[in-house]
Amino acid sequence: MEKVFREPVHDFIHVDNQIIYDLINTAEFQRLRRIKQLGTTSAVFHGAEHSRFSHCMGVYHIAKTITDHFSMNYPMEWDPDENLVTQCAALLHDVGHGAYSHTFEGLFETDHEAVTREIITSPSTEVNAVLRRVAPDFPEKVASVIAHEYPNPQVVQLISSQIDADRMDYLLRDSYYTGAVYGQYDLTRILHVIRPVPNGIAFVINGVHAVEDYIVSRYQMYQQVYFHPASRSMEVILKNLLARAKDLYSSQTDYFKITSARLIPFFEQNNNLNDYLSLDDGVMNTYFQTWMTSEDAILSDLAQAYMNRHLLKSVQFAKTDFDKLDQMRELVEQAGFNVKYYTGIHSNFDLPYDFYRPTSDTPRTQIEIIQKDGTLYELSELSPLVASLTGTIHGNRRFYFPKVMLEHEDFRALIKNDSFLPAQK
Amino acid sequence: MEKVFREPVHDFIHVDNQIIYDLINTAEFQRLRRIKQLGTTSAVFHGAEHSRFSHCMGVYHIAKTITDHFSMNYPMEWDPDENLVTQCAALLHDVGHGAYSHTFEGLFETDHEAVTREIITSPSTEVNAVLRRVAPDFPEKVASVIAHEYPNPQVVQLISSQIDADRMDYLLRDSYYTGAVYGQYDLTRILHVIRPVPNGIAFVINGVHAVEDYIVSRYQMYQQVYFHPASRSMEVILKNLLARAKDLYSSQTDYFKITSARLIPFFEQNNNLNDYLSLDDGVMNTYFQTWMTSEDAILSDLAQAYMNRHLLKSVQFAKTDFDKLDQMRELVEQAGFNVKYYTGIHSNFDLPYDFYRPTSDTPRTQIEIIQKDGTLYELSELSPLVASLTGTIHGNRRFYFPKVMLEHEDFRALIKNDSFLPAQK
Amino acid sequence: MEKVFREPVHDFIHVDNQIIYDLINTAEFQRLRRIKQLGTTSAVFHGAEHSRFSHCMGVYHIAKTITDHFSMNYPMEWDPDENLVTQCAALLHDVGHGAYSHTFEGLFETDHEAVTREIITSPSTEVNAVLRRVAPDFPEKVASVIAHEYPNPQVVQLISSQIDADRMDYLLRDSYYTGAVYGQYDLTRILHVIRPVPNGIAFVINGVHAVEDYIVSRYQMYQQVYFHPASRSMEVILKNLLARAKDLYSSQTDYFKITSARLIPFFEQNNNLNDYLSLDDGVMNTYFQTWMTSEDAILSDLAQAYMNRHLLKSVQFAKTDFDKLDQMRELVEQAGFNVKYYTGIHSNFDLPYDFYRPTSDTPRTQIEIIQKDGTLYELSELSPLVASLTGTIHGNRRFYFPKVMLEHEDFRALIKNDSFLPAQK
Amino acid sequence: MEKVFREPVHDFIHVDNQIIYDLINTAEFQRLRRIKQLGTTSAVFHGAEHSRFSHCMGVYHIAKTITDHFSMNYPMEWDPDENLVTQCAALLHDVGHGAYSHTFEGLFETDHEAVTREIITSPSTEVNAVLRRVAPDFPEKVASVIAHEYPNPQVVQLISSQIDADRMDYLLRDSYYTGAVYGQYDLTRILHVIRPVPNGIAFVINGVHAVEDYIVSRYQMYQQVYFHPASRSMEVILKNLLARAKDLYSSQTDYFKITSARLIPFFEQNNNLNDYLSLDDGVMNTYFQTWMTSEDAILSDLAQAYMNRHLLKSVQFAKTDFDKLDQMRELVEQAGFNVKYYTGIHSNFDLPYDFYRPTSDTPRTQIEIIQKDGTLYELSELSPLVASLTGTIHGNRRFYFPKVMLEHEDFRALIKNDSFLPAQK
Repeated sequence: MEKVFREPVHDFIHVDNQIIYDLINTAEFQRLRRIKQLGTTSAVFHGAEHSRFSHCMGVYHIAKTITDHFSMNYPMEWDPDENLVTQCAALLHDVGHGAYSHTFEGLFETDHEAVTREIITSPSTEVNAVLRRVAPDFPEKVASVIAHEYPNPQVVQLISSQIDADRMDYLLRDSYYTGAVYGQYDLTRILHVIRPVPNGIAFVINGVHAVEDYIVSRYQMYQQVYFHPASRSMEVILKNLLARAKDLYSSQTDYFKITSARLIPFFEQNNNLNDYLSLDDGVMNTYFQTWMTSEDAILSDLAQAYMNRHLLKSVQFAKTDFDKLDQMRELVEQAGFNVKYYTGIHSNFDLPYDFYRPTSDTPRTQIEIIQKDGTLYELSELSPLVASLTGTIHGNRRFYFPKVMLEHEDFRALIKNDSFLPAQK
Repeated sequence: MEKVFREPVHDFIHVDNQIIYDLINTAEFQRLRRIKQLGTTSAVFHGAEHSRFSHCMGVYHIAKTITDHFSMNYPMEWDPDENLVTQCAALLHDVGHGAYSHTFEGLFETDHEAVTREIITSPSTEVNAVLRRVAPDFPEKVASVIAHEYPNPQVVQLISSQIDADRMDYLLRDSYYTGAVYGQYDLTRILHVIRPVPNGIAFVINGVHAVEDYIVSRYQMYQQVYFHPASRSMEVILKNLLARAKDLYSSQTDYFKITSARLIPFFEQNNNLNDYLSLDDGVMNTYFQTWMTSEDAILSDLAQAYMNRHLLKSVQFAKTDFDKLDQMRELVEQAGFNVKYYTGIHSNFDLPYDFYRPTSDTPRTQIEIIQKDGTLYELSELSPLVASLTGTIHGNRRFYFPKVMLEHEDFRALIKNDSFLPAQK
Repeated sequence: MEKVFREPVHDFIHVDNQIIYDLINTAEFQRLRRIKQLGTTSAVFHGAEHSRFSHCMGVYHIAKTITDHFSMNYPMEWDPDENLVTQCAALLHDVGHGAYSHTFEGLFETDHEAVTREIITSPSTEVNAVLRRVAPDFPEKVASVIAHEYPNPQVVQLISSQIDADRMDYLLRDSYYTGAVYGQYDLTRILHVIRPVPNGIAFVINGVHAVEDYIVSRYQMYQQVYFHPASRSMEVILKNLLARAKDLYSSQTDYFKITSARLIPFFEQNNNLNDYLSLDDGVMNTYFQTWMTSEDAILSDLAQAYMNRHLLKSVQFAKTDFDKLDQMRELVEQAGFNVKYYTGIHSNFDLPYDFYRPTSDTPRTQIEIIQKDGTLYELSELSPLVASLTGTIHGNRRFYFPKVMLEHEDFRALIKNDSFLPAQK
Repeated sequence: MEKVFREPVHDFIHVDNQIIYDLINTAEFQRLRRIKQLGTTSAVFHGAEHSRFSHCMGVYHIAKTITDHFSMNYPMEWDPDENLVTQCAALLHDVGHGAYSHTFEGLFETDHEAVTREIITSPSTEVNAVLRRVAPDFPEKVASVIAHEYPNPQVVQLISSQIDADRMDYLLRDSYYTGAVYGQYDLTRILHVIRPVPNGIAFVINGVHAVEDYIVSRYQMYQQVYFHPASRSMEVILKNLLARAKDLYSSQTDYFKITSARLIPFFEQNNNLNDYLSLDDGVMNTYFQTWMTSEDAILSDLAQAYMNRHLLKSVQFAKTDFDKLDQMRELVEQAGFNVKYYTGIHSNFDLPYDFYRPTSDTPRTQIEIIQKDGTLYELSELSPLVASLTGTIHGNRRFYFPKVMLEHEDFRALIKNDSFLPAQK
């Protein structure tokens, strides 16, 4: 069989394995169509309305391209029996993502990675049923790849490392849909120079600049798109809105049971896989729309702010600015706002690249470059640009507050120096 | 003021008028973020998940580019006082679109164009409040542009004609998001050669090929994307699903009141503007998810088919194939399906271009090309390609049925000649 | 071995056969770097300065992609032993092109197709020496493909038909370098649906729109780029310039022997392969620069006009306009110009597509589309757009004259109706 | 008047000033069509055959876009009377470039910048005649902009600084024609955030990432395209070939007078502007072709190597490797090669960016970023990526030798460690 999916990032995605095709058609995977890849970011970059479904298809496509390439050109270094497990793991690596995962998880203590494994290994899912057709232990194998516990490090690195199929797709895709050209890099070149080596994957030296460009592109996407102050404002509002609902639940149980039934298991901290899978962006937004007419002034106000994009404003601060934060919060309170629901702190930091540090808590698999004579060099040894980003954390902390505070003279005095600051830890 | 929106189709969209910016921030306009531009087509072209919000922003951008160009370069032929009304009409031309409009309107007798006018002219909307700040009669003016009743034909043609800002944007945008390259044409060139003339707009001769390419691109997008059999399958399922719910409503009123409250006014054919605005893709999908567990076997089955993309199959037929259709329906019935909900006819036809035919019921404004000596020619006189598409209708009729019927020998015999057929009226 | 050539149209061109690599490195093939693909067109579209070398590399790349695809996926319908001969023919199909071939051939009775065969089969060339390493009769085989005499029609059609590797590359390439977007079509799709069939090649039905778009794109490139009046003006000047030199040769033999030695064999109509290969754009332009200071006023004036791009103006005429042409020539003569060297007729016509007409003098191999049930349809039966272009000739005749004539009232009266006219035979 | 030039990098270039149009049509400017922008690089990246003409058109286009933008939006900070001088300087900044300038200048002590000024200010040129029509002192004004001596630093910086119209065009253009995607950056964004400030130009903070990306792109183009070992090999051969001809000239004067007349003034170090302007790539290549049959074995061999692309091989070395270089040269000599003509050293270094260092010999104008409060920051203060490239020199030294030396065991032992090395000073 062969099915072809036309799409703009990879042009055509070919599926020639019935297992893959059937996985795509499961309810759990189709559900990803209803969850935006970039969450609140589409409120800022309006072109970026693509779903996790599209992204997962792209990750599968890249994994397929690489494993086909390895099977044909490196039969001694790569075992073609690993192709299917790699492609399944690629396709399913995000299947456990939920609506607005980031914000939701912080508040309701869910874990999309755990859910991914559960969807794959739980006998109740359609995904599991398809995977079992390969072999009884196949679901566990796929899950172990995603958990970094699969014995073959080549497979693990293709799915999860500093240059894996996941990142390769989302950089290109998010760049395509936002219109942010700096996220583009030379995927064709990288897919040509990638090679299996005994303990993982590596890249041939004549493609080193494409790998360098990939790291730089990723850094730029983080600084400009993923860390954009306005989409973080939407996240703060969303978090405060859900927190308000959660706080109100015990006193207004009936209201929430009628208006937002599928959130109850989460308010009660007693949820199962089905509860989780019944949520998506559309369900959440439907509830928020209903809450717009709630009698609770805070709930309805925040729901309106979220649905109609009335942003909180923000200022950058340093981690030692305790006093300043306290002063700002006090002024917000004096202006009649409940600071718990009308302010928020949002910190975004990223470590663009690091070499392997065996004593680190979370050591990373470094990117290896193969010289002509076969020796391996770690990427940052060869690239001054990558070296400048290695081991350094980039991002900032922002304090969010109601826009009306900008009319308050004392408040304005506190934030007057909010110029763009260099990244800081 | 100036606000810049980054997006992939037009790169940057500039808003330098407070009225426009405030219109974008109204609840009615923000709601368009929750309605997909291409409806069920994103189930086939998975990259095409963009919303009507993005499209409307693009139409505004094109209208602004043209009106700015006219104001600067053709001060004698164009009145700059028309800029704002043109830009507002461009931005708002689709503001009345609802969730899955096409299917929904057929079933519930709503009319998104009437809703558009109502949103603009009704004193209860945020959109109307913003427009009234320009002048008390400004909302009516904007509405009359969209209704083709505005006295200045230049403005009307920019918003609604065979080559208007609406079409210019959706072709490029749908092409970008589906990955269908044939939808691309040279917008930059068209925006350079467009000119105001006494009774409308026209295009300078040295851009005639860009205009020709636009007509051809539009034709190709219709044949390949908009008329795709699989997305029409989704439309048939959706229509049958909603029809089933409507039919069940009288006997299961409580069930629907609890599970799908916002549809009640439509089931009862007693809805107002607020009812209409409370619907969007997410709300509808949330209801369909709930219906997946309904006790009515047909409702739950169709809801599952729609949400998890289990398509009906289809065959093309000619308008004289009454007997064949009857035979197919009978076989479907015999196989245990209720033909009302498990089959459907979907006809798609388009007239790619036509010249002005004064005696037609719906005469079209033809596309005029300005020769070097100032005389006007109608486009198809100059382009054999366009001439081949002029006045001819392209499309087909398809009959949809359950996939399992393909295993039925008699049924297979009936559809065996379903090769690709040339377009037919 | 594997060599990778980076380039913008196909991204990376892979050479993994030593014969191909050695052919690229022959003197005859490297010479193509010094001959522009589009000749005088780069004087109008200044981005289009690419050489025949780039184009030939692209044709090879497409032929390699197709033959690799056939070998892997259609082992029953395609003989992999044909791969090398196909790829060599693709690479070398234009190796006999000379500087400004079009104009040059008309005047000096050379024939670039004959030269191509001679380069391939003559034992004196580097190309022939490389090809002989495959087999003694291999050069003849490659030459017979280019001459349409090779027994396997699949191979012949890949190199020379209405949809061959040559056209597939030049459309994309000329579009890329001119910036004319309408020349873009979906090559990836076409390379996926192309299939070998018993008597040639065909295309699977689900790619029919990509094939249609290719025909339309080709038509548009002809009308807008290849037939552009300004580049034809440069061709007329070039032809007149070379004609003047040829006419002067007998009386000024020494002058030309000193200033333009490599043209002498052509002036004397006594040239061999080496003479031909010693010419390229740079050599010709060097001679023209020298002629700019010739004592012959016409030669120096035309040389300056050509080098510094002083164009003749032109007017379109119908094939029955004998009188008008005579009148224009007479006025030009009266104004003091030698009409032989200061006017010219340039006719450009193209037949965009035709089906097989067995009784035609030059019957064409039609494009075949494979239906799902395996039957073949001729392309224009399935596409109204292609049907509109089938069997019809498009182009025009232009008369070129000195720009100063536009100041002459009687002359202006004669050409006043030169608006853009629909294509005519 | 308005003339439109279609091209692929900027799409359409508009010329609406007769002076600019007439400058384009001068002999000196048209001559740039015959000089490749990237010299020998097109022998490696075969798509990159574009001329200096295209590049100069692009620089003009960018300068026009910026000056139009300044005139409309910053009438207080920018004097529109500077538009024309800026645009003329942009168009003409490279008009003095000659064939293979880099190599040629080293050998014959010409200076393309001095020639540029001479073409502009010498009363004998067509360029000067056009410029004088503006004002008698206008040619001097334009020349002073290019010489950095014009009093208005805004104009000077637009033409020549670390982020000027010249660099903006060549990065995009060379990237487009080579296919090297890493050279792409967001020109649209940069042209939107560029602003005139009292002592020059600056960029608004919200475009800082586009400026950062521009610096990174430039760095990557240098490392991968401009410093490519193979095109440097062609430069070494070219230099040795011209050196051989120069050395032979005194003993074979007649031979060179007949075969390569236009080089004589340079061999005799007695050349004027006309001599310089009579050379271009085509003339040089014509001479080299003739030399291919010279009786001097070295001259003919090098000419053949250059024309047919028989490259020298190379090895990277450190600046302290004197002994190793001596040993290699000795082995080359022993193998029968004249080391003067068959080896060569080629060093390429670039300083990607630097801030203003007043005590430097060649202080650079740093890139300034305007914060929201109006204060200026130097770019590297805000960008860790740029900081990593600031003040550091990147490149390498390579030693070139005949390919056959690779078969020599002692020689191979000397170069065995030529892996890719990090950049070094």
